[in-house]
Amino acid sequence: MAKINENYLKLPSNYLFSEIAKRVKNFQEKNPDAEIIKLGIGDVTQPLPKVCIDAMTKAVQEMGNAETFRGYGPEQGYNFLREKISEWNYKKNGIDISADEIFISDGSKCDCGNIQEIFSLDNKIAIFDPVYPVYLDSNIMAGRTEIIFLPCTEENNFSPEPPNEKVDLIYLCSPNNPTGTVLNKKILKNWIDYAKKNNSVIFFDAAYSAYITEKNIPHSIYEIDGAKDVAIEFRSFSKTAGFTGTRCGYVVIPENLFGTTSSGEKILLKNLWLRRQTTKFNGTAYIIQRGAAAIYSDEGQVQIKNLINYYLENARIICEGLKEIGLKFFGGKNAPYIWLKTPENFSSWEYFDELLKNFNIVGTPGAGFGACGENYLRLTSFGNREETLKAVERLKK
Amino acid sequence: MAKINENYLKLPSNYLFSEIAKRVKNFQEKNPDAEIIKLGIGDVTQPLPKVCIDAMTKAVQEMGNAETFRGYGPEQGYNFLREKISEWNYKKNGIDISADEIFISDGSKCDCGNIQEIFSLDNKIAIFDPVYPVYLDSNIMAGRTEIIFLPCTEENNFSPEPPNEKVDLIYLCSPNNPTGTVLNKKILKNWIDYAKKNNSVIFFDAAYSAYITEKNIPHSIYEIDGAKDVAIEFRSFSKTAGFTGTRCGYVVIPENLFGTTSSGEKILLKNLWLRRQTTKFNGTAYIIQRGAAAIYSDEGQVQIKNLINYYLENARIICEGLKEIGLKFFGGKNAPYIWLKTPENFSSWEYFDELLKNFNIVGTPGAGFGACGENYLRLTSFGNREETLKAVERLKK
Repeated sequence: MAKINENYLKLPSNYLFSEIAKRVKNFQEKNPDAEIIKLGIGDVTQPLPKVCIDAMTKAVQEMGNAETFRGYGPEQGYNFLREKISEWNYKKNGIDISADEIFISDGSKCDCGNIQEIFSLDNKIAIFDPVYPVYLDSNIMAGRTEIIFLPCTEENNFSPEPPNEKVDLIYLCSPNNPTGTVLNKKILKNWIDYAKKNNSVIFFDAAYSAYITEKNIPHSIYEIDGAKDVAIEFRSFSKTAGFTGTRCGYVVIPENLFGTTSSGEKILLKNLWLRRQTTKFNGTAYIIQRGAAAIYSDEGQVQIKNLINYYLENARIICEGLKEIGLKFFGGKNAPYIWLKTPENFSSWEYFDELLKNFNIVGTPGAGFGACGENYLRLTSFGNREETLKAVERLKK
Repeated sequence: MAKINENYLKLPSNYLFSEIAKRVKNFQEKNPDAEIIKLGIGDVTQPLPKVCIDAMTKAVQEMGNAETFRGYGPEQGYNFLREKISEWNYKKNGIDISADEIFISDGSKCDCGNIQEIFSLDNKIAIFDPVYPVYLDSNIMAGRTEIIFLPCTEENNFSPEPPNEKVDLIYLCSPNNPTGTVLNKKILKNWIDYAKKNNSVIFFDAAYSAYITEKNIPHSIYEIDGAKDVAIEFRSFSKTAGFTGTRCGYVVIPENLFGTTSSGEKILLKNLWLRRQTTKFNGTAYIIQRGAAAIYSDEGQVQIKNLINYYLENARIICEGLKEIGLKFFGGKNAPYIWLKTPENFSSWEYFDELLKNFNIVGTPGAGFGACGENYLRLTSFGNREETLKAVERLKK
């Protein structure tokens, strides 16, 4: 008898974004003339940089010629991309991460979801609350039950202290989804010290690092001494270069980062991940990897900077508007997300409905990211300029 | 303390194709003038069909314009591709599989490796021996221990009977990798009856179905009555349209296919898979899906037929050559693989070394696919014509 993985039944059956879509659909049906502006889902709207388009156009042509055709690529990604990432994202910033420590994937969601597979089911997990749902759900699905939530509140600047008890695996995300806040060097150093003391491993999700505008906020956890002994880092082209529908990301596993067996033996995590990827993954499409590699040139860097600045300007417009109205919010400075405190103690979903009904604006209810997201709403700056301006104008009225 | 998934340590540390690469490299270094012909790995060599190139070129351009840009797509794939698959691969052949039952992925290796995640760890697994290593390795990595091997031998035509004991999950692959043999309707009916009787689920890997030349050999398990109640099917664009480096495949989970909880409740497998994909996957790149969809047109079908015929002609050339030499082999008629019986009782690896040394030809040792692959060598027809002809000439001498 084919028995199912019953851990799946522990997940909430209604996925956050499905519920939002349902409510929006209902509203639109009842109000067919309403011009709804979506500032909810974290999806980009602007076209890919020209360097990426040119590189992919060329790569497609290569696939049409026997001389330049590519079959299976290496599961860990092509060296032309791994070398560029090592050089441009790490070595140029004084961080010693080599191409061998970089594994290309079809996106950070996959990497963040899959990474737990190389670890034992009896590890104790620490995650922030509110949190990107993939960290939690992938662990529940695998059957992990010891999960500690660290509340992120206005009082602790959305940056909880390491727990008093020992945890084995820690998910950190900076700039943070959903709160839009960042972890500074001192805070990260504190987490690294904790991890060293407890032989924990940190999963550092830096998918939004390109949005950091303030100096002294680390773009990579490896900017901090000792991180290579305890941390795996996730990065993505999705929000850096508009690749949400093009799919490319990568994970960094330092060459001397170890996990432990029950008998105390040290095992290189890099080797376990390679084994995972060679068995359950077959590499990212050659065409896509060429597109990703194109951002690592002087012209490519200018183009992605323009793209990021476009969204950051949206964030600034939203923040200015909210200030003017007198609404309280966090984030939006080093992140594409604005974490809006609901006025008059509205619940997240009540305020979601209010915004939809009165202003035809869609946000994401903070409660969907965890209990501590209650009384918040996440707004994103990934819309186009006109809609963003219009949304702010509506709110001001 | 971050504990690793110790199931990984049960895997053989030397991956088959790494060992082959190592031996080839050693030989080439000692014999720099030897012109080595690779008939080992199952990777295609011919360029993508023109319809795919054109469609992807257009899709890349779309990604460069704000009006036609695509962000996140649906995790289960775009409807334009799912509808075409339903129509061209199923409904045109009288099989009632709808777009809703089709889930697009970045390749069959990923689907075959990931599918076990939605099932309980205490299921008993049946796999053929020899077998595509992903079925076995993905289950070992997940921690399943009850795995039954069904020997495929010359005596049983490489088609073992269902076991006497009850198994819960069954991996079938036809046309078979590595043996190149096929399962006919009667045999599949027998497996379906077994699965119905035991409430088992069959994983039917049809990645090579485009290579079937004989009538009455099923291309899909759903050609057989009752299969929709017990079977999940895997298909791929890799060998159908040369997508090994372009990455697209799909899995079919019929809408009324159930798994069971420990308390006997029936759960739709389709819903579990959707939950798995929405959490740990983020869809296949839009550009790639457009390329895949292009084969579903009259012109597209002509182009992939030409591509497949090119490789089938290679297979014919190899088979004719082996016959002339007097070597015994199987497959090569409905599959791109030829399963060569080693002469003079050579072991697989001994014969691998012989072929490399004496003829500078690389095959894949059958023993690498399981104990019953001993004394066999897998040859593939995915090389280019010139090399394939040259390899056969060398063998004849």
